Amino acid sequence: MRLLEFTDAAEEILKDAGESIRAIPVDQIEEMVDVLLEGLKRKILIIGTGRSGLVGRSFAMRLMHLGYDVHVLGETITPAIGKNDIVVAISGSGATVLPVTSARIAKKVGALIIAITSRPKSPLGKLADQVVYVKAKSKAAKQKDFFLRQLVGEHESLAPLGTMFEISATIFLDSLIVELMRQLGKTEGELRARHATLEGL
Amino acid sequence: MRLLEFTDAAEEILKDAGESIRAIPVDQIEEMVDVLLEGLKRKILIIGTGRSGLVGRSFAMRLMHLGYDVHVLGETITPAIGKNDIVVAISGSGATVLPVTSARIAKKVGALIIAITSRPKSPLGKLADQVVYVKAKSKAAKQKDFFLRQLVGEHESLAPLGTMFEISATIFLDSLIVELMRQLGKTEGELRARHATLEGL
Amino acid sequence: MRLLEFTDAAEEILKDAGESIRAIPVDQIEEMVDVLLEGLKRKILIIGTGRSGLVGRSFAMRLMHLGYDVHVLGETITPAIGKNDIVVAISGSGATVLPVTSARIAKKVGALIIAITSRPKSPLGKLADQVVYVKAKSKAAKQKDFFLRQLVGEHESLAPLGTMFEISATIFLDSLIVELMRQLGKTEGELRARHATLEGL
Amino acid sequence: MRLLEFTDAAEEILKDAGESIRAIPVDQIEEMVDVLLEGLKRKILIIGTGRSGLVGRSFAMRLMHLGYDVHVLGETITPAIGKNDIVVAISGSGATVLPVTSARIAKKVGALIIAITSRPKSPLGKLADQVVYVKAKSKAAKQKDFFLRQLVGEHESLAPLGTMFEISATIFLDSLIVELMRQLGKTEGELRARHATLEGL
Repeated sequence: MRLLEFTDAAEEILKDAGESIRAIPVDQIEEMVDVLLEGLKRKILIIGTGRSGLVGRSFAMRLMHLGYDVHVLGETITPAIGKNDIVVAISGSGATVLPVTSARIAKKVGALIIAITSRPKSPLGKLADQVVYVKAKSKAAKQKDFFLRQLVGEHESLAPLGTMFEISATIFLDSLIVELMRQLGKTEGELRARHATLEGL
Repeated sequence: MRLLEFTDAAEEILKDAGESIRAIPVDQIEEMVDVLLEGLKRKILIIGTGRSGLVGRSFAMRLMHLGYDVHVLGETITPAIGKNDIVVAISGSGATVLPVTSARIAKKVGALIIAITSRPKSPLGKLADQVVYVKAKSKAAKQKDFFLRQLVGEHESLAPLGTMFEISATIFLDSLIVELMRQLGKTEGELRARHATLEGL
Repeated sequence: MRLLEFTDAAEEILKDAGESIRAIPVDQIEEMVDVLLEGLKRKILIIGTGRSGLVGRSFAMRLMHLGYDVHVLGETITPAIGKNDIVVAISGSGATVLPVTSARIAKKVGALIIAITSRPKSPLGKLADQVVYVKAKSKAAKQKDFFLRQLVGEHESLAPLGTMFEISATIFLDSLIVELMRQLGKTEGELRARHATLEGL
Repeated sequence: MRLLEFTDAAEEILKDAGESIRAIPVDQIEEMVDVLLEGLKRKILIIGTGRSGLVGRSFAMRLMHLGYDVHVLGETITPAIGKNDIVVAISGSGATVLPVTSARIAKKVGALIIAITSRPKSPLGKLADQVVYVKAKSKAAKQKDFFLRQLVGEHESLAPLGTMFEISATIFLDSLIVELMRQLGKTEGELRARHATLEGL
């Protein structure tokens, strides 16, 4: 079977992810780095459902490699969190009920909430103490009229549902890990030493 | 629909679980308690697949409530383990490839292996430093001949596959938690304080 | 180290679990069996957090072995549910925010809700179409006065937090599996054939 | 705190991911598309540990949205697989013990193995029926000598451990989903209809 859309999709994903990451306000990134740099002594909890939850787990794994006391909501040994703890909530729409509900409870107990979202004005964005705005094209472009979309240079994404948010958020968070490694003076060897061994890596 | 076998099954499960737990050699329990009492300063890793894995997670959650640095193989933030760490591997047959493979790697890096199993002479039982023998009836009784089974008082379990091992191991481990609470002087309030809050309990 | 409370705890767990299971109203069990017997053609979704979530997964695994199209909320391939689907929500308190929130959404889209709970009058119990009442002793007995407790024969559980609910619910659901095997004419061999093979069992 | 390496890391990740995806042999992609197009009637099992496992889950979720009967090794309702089933195993090194062990068992029972890996000559690559080669820069460049690296234009990645493999594999698999949507004539609306609803999206 010859490929019909694979290459277009891949190039578009790469291009849109680049645009999305370059559009994140620098002060929002700096603010998140600041919190995480002092967070080595605090508990960090990652919240997210669906593919956003997987993005969060991927980030949590690297934070663990860096030496953080990090947990993922819904996993077995996730403890209570409280005042002074940090919650990183990941949701493109910022409106998914379960993460918003959890973030709300976290806020009540006094944790600091960082939202990674495409919609800063969503319920999650509004309740968060800090927001990182990861804009993301979606299949359903805003301008319903095709010619108007062409005119304003807007294009729908080939990638379905939250794909562009999830990939952009992944690259954003992995770049943040590099920043944290540099700021904390951590080497790859130190990360590797904390990497799970029993799966046989 | 009238119930046909529910009551018989429930009574049999309760009876067989009781027999199984009463048959665990006391010195094996004491030995495990000893290791866990000094384990508060060591990392503990829980290994198991399928329903045995769920039994292990259930135990891990309570160990976390007690203040242990406990992890579950396969979850997101599970770190490397090494010398002096403790591995609790749960497998009825003691022969399931993945947990045995992981336990073998754990042994190589110098961790102490405790096996909870129905077959002390299985690959897992043999490589473990300590074994807790949780005997478990299964649907397929040893004596294939029905009259012979009656004669020796052997009965097949109504519960399928590893059910009896899993339930007996659960009750064993939950009783061990009570023992640890008592030995460590922990109150229920202290456990509750560590209980995950963001799920809204 | 000599054991102090292990044996007492184990015997009490067995006794209390027995009392709890014998106290489940038979019509509630029959009603749940009826729904599950026609559920072979419907999607089943299991909801629960913490250790109740593990109880649910354990049940889900056996339903899968029986041939059901069953899913667990929060796992990767869990699809949308809708009208005619069945939700089994497990929560001792019946008040944990996340499962209650999810059950409420499920009800809105037209699914049938079965609640397994110790508190039929809880938010979860009230919104459910069917309730299975699994009563469970807890460490904090109702009568705060020790002598009054003795007088009415009430005793606190040695097992902390939701332990008694979780164990009783596990034995209840495993007995239900035996009932379903009998009603559906399934053999252990058929269950084993669906059992995950790649973990090496 | 001013950002030191964030921007460099992000740009490098985007550039390296692009190079990696463009270097995947087209016939390998076509071959995988062919198998998946006929796979709608077959069971698909996703294997991977650590962050590669998360990449696999992300892919599994979209395959489910497309209507596939897909499962993830290690999750609750994952059934036995057999002859004619398809295994997609994801491992950068192709040498991680657990996924290799599982893939080997899968091969024995007659499943078709597709390996997504950076090392086609690894144990996983060798046992697979099909390989998709996702090359990935790593922090430890081959040429240990800095000047030699400059000379041959080789650069180490800023991103640690398997990051570049994981991101490249994610973008590859998400582009494959767009291809499958096109080939199967599926709309975003159809995917959305299968998207888990109970988390409140």
